[in-house]
Amino acid sequence: MKKEKNNSPPSGTRDFLPRELHRRRQAAGILADRFERHGFLPVETPALERIQTLTGVYGDEGDKLIFKILPRGQQAELNPQPDLALRYDLTVPAVRALAEHDLLQKGFRRYQIGPVWRAERAARGRFREFWQCDVDLYNTPTPLAEAETVAALEGGLRDLGMRELVISVNTRGILRKLCDLFKISEAQRKAVLIALDKLDKFPIPSVRREIAAIPCSGARLLADALHPEFAAELLDKDTLDGPERDELAEITEAVAAAASRDLEISVNPLLARGLDYYTGFIFEFHTLGGSTRAIAAGGRYDNLAAEVAGSDCRICGGSIGLERVLDELEVQDSISALDPPADDVVHLTLFSPEMLVATEQLARELRDLGLKVYVGRGGKIGDQFKAAERAGHRRCLIYGPDEEEKAVVTLKDLETGAQSEVSISDLAGLVEILKGI
Amino acid sequence: MKKEKNNSPPSGTRDFLPRELHRRRQAAGILADRFERHGFLPVETPALERIQTLTGVYGDEGDKLIFKILPRGQQAELNPQPDLALRYDLTVPAVRALAEHDLLQKGFRRYQIGPVWRAERAARGRFREFWQCDVDLYNTPTPLAEAETVAALEGGLRDLGMRELVISVNTRGILRKLCDLFKISEAQRKAVLIALDKLDKFPIPSVRREIAAIPCSGARLLADALHPEFAAELLDKDTLDGPERDELAEITEAVAAAASRDLEISVNPLLARGLDYYTGFIFEFHTLGGSTRAIAAGGRYDNLAAEVAGSDCRICGGSIGLERVLDELEVQDSISALDPPADDVVHLTLFSPEMLVATEQLARELRDLGLKVYVGRGGKIGDQFKAAERAGHRRCLIYGPDEEEKAVVTLKDLETGAQSEVSISDLAGLVEILKGI
Repeated sequence: MKKEKNNSPPSGTRDFLPRELHRRRQAAGILADRFERHGFLPVETPALERIQTLTGVYGDEGDKLIFKILPRGQQAELNPQPDLALRYDLTVPAVRALAEHDLLQKGFRRYQIGPVWRAERAARGRFREFWQCDVDLYNTPTPLAEAETVAALEGGLRDLGMRELVISVNTRGILRKLCDLFKISEAQRKAVLIALDKLDKFPIPSVRREIAAIPCSGARLLADALHPEFAAELLDKDTLDGPERDELAEITEAVAAAASRDLEISVNPLLARGLDYYTGFIFEFHTLGGSTRAIAAGGRYDNLAAEVAGSDCRICGGSIGLERVLDELEVQDSISALDPPADDVVHLTLFSPEMLVATEQLARELRDLGLKVYVGRGGKIGDQFKAAERAGHRRCLIYGPDEEEKAVVTLKDLETGAQSEVSISDLAGLVEILKGI
Repeated sequence: MKKEKNNSPPSGTRDFLPRELHRRRQAAGILADRFERHGFLPVETPALERIQTLTGVYGDEGDKLIFKILPRGQQAELNPQPDLALRYDLTVPAVRALAEHDLLQKGFRRYQIGPVWRAERAARGRFREFWQCDVDLYNTPTPLAEAETVAALEGGLRDLGMRELVISVNTRGILRKLCDLFKISEAQRKAVLIALDKLDKFPIPSVRREIAAIPCSGARLLADALHPEFAAELLDKDTLDGPERDELAEITEAVAAAASRDLEISVNPLLARGLDYYTGFIFEFHTLGGSTRAIAAGGRYDNLAAEVAGSDCRICGGSIGLERVLDELEVQDSISALDPPADDVVHLTLFSPEMLVATEQLARELRDLGLKVYVGRGGKIGDQFKAAERAGHRRCLIYGPDEEEKAVVTLKDLETGAQSEVSISDLAGLVEILKGI
């Protein structure tokens, strides 16, 4: 027998035991119901993609975080370079899959809830295997797609019990206009956006330093202008006026119509979002007083389908981070509704090895009538009661030779200690009693 | 715009569109309900495991089929050898996870339904990403664990609509006795078992040739004895009598008590099962007249926990192959009950871009009242009706400026063509009408 094994899951991944799993499944089910109520249909893609489908799409940082898989067998000898990779998000594989099934042009609306993998440095609350909950509208015009995306995600967050939701909205057009205003050179715009994206996670001075260090005189001007009221000032003055601001206003109006009246909408001309592929509207959901990390986010990406699948298609969508929402719900103390029930399981004790066949027959008949039945492991009856209590089973059935002869079972309520004999000649009656307690 | 992309999923994997996904989810939900009715609780492990957790456990053939993942970042420079792997089954990771959470000794019963990955040569009906549906009883004695394993799997198969089920049962003890009888040397026993395992897939002469080629005089004797009646003769005569046969009889009796009366139990002393790790009872489910491949299988593996997790634990369990069952259900023509409903989605047409905000508000209110609402993509109203029909939505709502002024919607039944105006001053009334149709 080997000893001292490391039995923890790989760094950044987790094992889920029943209680946590019940919570996660409930949450995923709630989101699926919500997304279907908005007319989205489920699509699932494999965990694996061809490596060329994923590289170059998420930016340089993203490329480094892709888990790569080695070729197998004969292939490996011909070419030892990795040929497959684990999906990095659900968005890109979905575009590939819908192109393959000729669904990009038909106004399809898709949702998917499942794991993605990123080789991030594992840290508290940051995982290498985590779940995204996506909605996307394909070939659907502005601002309908934006409104429907936000409405579905907000509805899902509310159904899960999230309160005091705020959505920050912006467009890439506004960011381009801002860069134009400050005469940021084309070559440096990506660096500026990456720095601006950190505004909700880091203090202003640190972002200001990062922007000032970008080799471009406009960047230094922008860094000087960055102070807490900068975003509000940009909106108050007519600095951003023009078609970009009109477009943002039109989208914001549609989003407000589709969202609940409780959603606080915050127009933020500095909101940048990290991912390379956005082309228009971008948004992030937070909770008032919650973590600085977004709990959901997304936007419009009209060029991705051409890049990934060689097919033009305007797309808008977004994603809820399941772990982040569950984290916040834990903080908000609203998880009890998601707790697993165990007291509907009946613990049928195994009185002795000789009673096994009779006990299994009784278990089969009770299960056929719809009861959840756990057959005890045998051993001392008192130990079986204790095991039942630990598992949260409230009712025990005892079925020994005496009971068998009298055609009864002894029913024991572990909470009250009450014990009574019930006939098994009328099993449906017993099931009624057990379901009624 | 790039053209001519290969948008198919990687070889041996699949994209699932809503219809197929609905079927798969229904099936997984039915199995989860069944397993919980038998007292099993869900556990989920990551897709990734440390490579040393998996290698050496599944035999030499298995090792070759494991998908291996390259190290990332700095690690990759220090050691370019793969450090992680995709899980090959659910059984081994579960043993690791339960050891980590100290649950192996407590009589835990676990189920898990999810994908596993094997780098098999992809072929019709054989996938590299496929789903297993596992149940296992930890530290639970014989024959209780065997009976509970079979009862849960059989119940699940029946709930899915599988009929004419046959279970073949045997033990490793019987196989050892058989090898003793034929004086098969220890070194050649594994090769003999691998060959016997092919008896349900290949004609007897081909298996006979494979066994005769094994360098051992006993193997040639066994090959000569292999004819269609050989298994039955072994049982009729007292050749196998002894403690091994008594154990198999005891298990078979317990299994028969726990299983439904319709299950045909076939004792087959030649049943071998491929996986290295079985130590006692082994079984396979088939359907009469169905595919030669088993639709579910399993057995007892009392040494695996020591090998994988450094912890002694007797375990018995089994697994349903989701794809195989769905294949057979398709053949059995019983899939209709698993088809997705779409006629409960109401298609709210977008009359014109000017009506977007009012339409989104109406959509929100209808969804708040529990309706499934798909907001049309705009364009010609006739095209929107066609899109609704293609999507299986039976009812359309038209909400143009005329309707807005009169505070009504026009309700159109696409099946009958019937059209009527309904007031929206009483939305609950409208929802009643829409739910009632």
